[in-house]
Amino acid sequence: MTPTPDAQPFRIGLLGHGTVGGAFETLLRERAAHVAAITGLQPRIAGVLTRSRGDFDEILAGCDLVVELIGGVEPARDYVLRAMRAGKHVVTANKQLLSQHGEELWAAAREHDVQLRFEAAVAGVVPVIRVLQESLAGAHVDRVHGIVNGTTNYILTEMARTGCSYDEALAGAQRLGYAEADPTEDVNGRDAAAKMAIIARLAFDTPVHLDQVTYEGIERITADDMEYAQELGLGLKLIGTAERIDGMLAVRVHPAFLYSGHPLASVHGPFNAVTVESEAITEITMSGPGAGGPQTASAVLGDVISAMIPPASTPETTQALQVVDDVQSSFYLHMEVADRPGVLAQVATILGEHGASIKSVVQKGLDERARLVMVVHPVLESRFFAAVEQIAVLDFLRSPPRAIRVIDEEFV
Amino acid sequence: MTPTPDAQPFRIGLLGHGTVGGAFETLLRERAAHVAAITGLQPRIAGVLTRSRGDFDEILAGCDLVVELIGGVEPARDYVLRAMRAGKHVVTANKQLLSQHGEELWAAAREHDVQLRFEAAVAGVVPVIRVLQESLAGAHVDRVHGIVNGTTNYILTEMARTGCSYDEALAGAQRLGYAEADPTEDVNGRDAAAKMAIIARLAFDTPVHLDQVTYEGIERITADDMEYAQELGLGLKLIGTAERIDGMLAVRVHPAFLYSGHPLASVHGPFNAVTVESEAITEITMSGPGAGGPQTASAVLGDVISAMIPPASTPETTQALQVVDDVQSSFYLHMEVADRPGVLAQVATILGEHGASIKSVVQKGLDERARLVMVVHPVLESRFFAAVEQIAVLDFLRSPPRAIRVIDEEFV
Repeated sequence: MTPTPDAQPFRIGLLGHGTVGGAFETLLRERAAHVAAITGLQPRIAGVLTRSRGDFDEILAGCDLVVELIGGVEPARDYVLRAMRAGKHVVTANKQLLSQHGEELWAAAREHDVQLRFEAAVAGVVPVIRVLQESLAGAHVDRVHGIVNGTTNYILTEMARTGCSYDEALAGAQRLGYAEADPTEDVNGRDAAAKMAIIARLAFDTPVHLDQVTYEGIERITADDMEYAQELGLGLKLIGTAERIDGMLAVRVHPAFLYSGHPLASVHGPFNAVTVESEAITEITMSGPGAGGPQTASAVLGDVISAMIPPASTPETTQALQVVDDVQSSFYLHMEVADRPGVLAQVATILGEHGASIKSVVQKGLDERARLVMVVHPVLESRFFAAVEQIAVLDFLRSPPRAIRVIDEEFV
Repeated sequence: MTPTPDAQPFRIGLLGHGTVGGAFETLLRERAAHVAAITGLQPRIAGVLTRSRGDFDEILAGCDLVVELIGGVEPARDYVLRAMRAGKHVVTANKQLLSQHGEELWAAAREHDVQLRFEAAVAGVVPVIRVLQESLAGAHVDRVHGIVNGTTNYILTEMARTGCSYDEALAGAQRLGYAEADPTEDVNGRDAAAKMAIIARLAFDTPVHLDQVTYEGIERITADDMEYAQELGLGLKLIGTAERIDGMLAVRVHPAFLYSGHPLASVHGPFNAVTVESEAITEITMSGPGAGGPQTASAVLGDVISAMIPPASTPETTQALQVVDDVQSSFYLHMEVADRPGVLAQVATILGEHGASIKSVVQKGLDERARLVMVVHPVLESRFFAAVEQIAVLDFLRSPPRAIRVIDEEFV
């Protein structure tokens, strides 16, 4: 990527410099040349406000867009409102703020004709906000289910995996940084409730305040409950639900057993996922990391870039990558052969001469034929196919060999 | 939803009136009041072009936006270019066109400062285009894996489920409308290749033409291959891959075995799914219906609405749904009780008096205690909790009863 020194600057005022703020500054530096190439504008941090440094008015006067990563209601609310009144776009990750003062803030964005973007406030880099606001703007949504708190999903996953108690899993999550020193709002469901309030507002076009969301946490889940879940083939997750019921709306967060085929049952560890159900579209599911500095910073950067470029932009290509068609792959190779000695040795020799090493082999008798199935370790495809061509003309082959690629990190 | 008779009209020129075109017209009629409420504009079809009716120039002159659902390269290319030159936004579902003439069309969109949106061209209502173009615009993508053809995924799912042959599964898919009378481009991988070309262009900012995508179909997959996959706990899917390899790009479509934990291994039937991998964000997976008239029409409508409203709009609420907190749920109820006769009868009686009917029950001895676990059919939560409150004070309870909700269509 060549730098774009003549690009106009795009000045970002950064409020807050904790985990996400720091990760955003790092990510922006890494991706600045790319962002400049696709937007024609050179992004840079024009000022940082923390408790100990920076002046909000000065930052506001010198920036094109404000990124709010302070969290909590005040002074974040005041800063965001003042930024929008000054005609600046705002990108925020603040779920507390939006779940309690969203209507006021969205009204201010409309009034001052600025963008208020908040993808990072819900499910980190999982693009649930954008998809609800834009892709599904016309849809009649019936129900949304979400795993929107990574801490609790990590704890429940560990309890299911190891059989440990809630307290042990929580302590492990804290050691690994998946839970904070004070995990109260995560484990009691309040964090997830704030996210479900925002999701419900967007999905159902109706005002939803955090106070209207019923929530229950995972503190009472025992190893015993997990054992029953596993016996019955169920998953046990902290689920947020927003759904229409008889012309009314229910928005709730609580632990729930899910049957194994449910799209959220296979969401493990700190991942988040959201399923949107609508009669016309059946359902859409989105999943990915729901927290973490770099991941949340990626969501913030996506919002910042969206504010920099016209809608639905497909910028000129910035790369001219050579497209190759010969790559390394692992293969499954299926052969029907005459059942006689030396067959496997010949096949293995030819594969070996072409650099293909055998990972596993299964041979089954089949009258006077045998079925020989093997999996080979990753090898350049051209070499593998050259080997298969040689094998195909051996006199003991009873039908053409069949090769299928294997994408399997565990298996290869 | 109250009608908005005073809203300005937003006139849509519709090119093509096949399955998706017809579904779009129906959906737009159903959702017109909602769209008017959130956009302030009253959408209507201002003209329809088919082989036998309509005049393109007339439609163009009388519309604000063109929806192109003709498919194929010509005359779609000509119409789309002329629409953009006339300053109209275009929404298209045309993967052939974009995978072969994308650069020309995107350049025209930039030149004439109009939006060219194409969510419906790839994976139907799964929002992969929007997410790649916007949410992940700043990301350094390493790899994309996709199941982007619903016909082949349906066929492979049926082969895995029933053990039938490829020909039998294809015939079944044709009977149910999941495969066309001439399924060639679906089953030979070319349809998926066109979609992967578009995905790769957006994910890697580099020109990718359909001709550069290597593809292989599913015609040679046998029941035997499926059997091996199942023995080994693998899924067998038609997978599209676009990935960086040593500073180059490989874009391919081929059948592949996937280990059971892979996010795409559990994508069944006609569903599509795309996984985007990037070091900074780990991975995002999106899944949903990849085809079907109403589903594809939903993707088109999402694009149309996005062209009608300013970016990142959170319109005023249009609903004032009452938020309820008492709903029907199925429950798991866990009790530790003294191991003596009559306990189950008492619990069941109290539940029954509150309208809760028992679906299943497991009782396990535990020294002189017993563990009693039951699942009850959906019941109003307030009634269930009232029952639990009565149960909690019974003298044979050895610890407080624990209730967890069950979201399980199969199980309840």
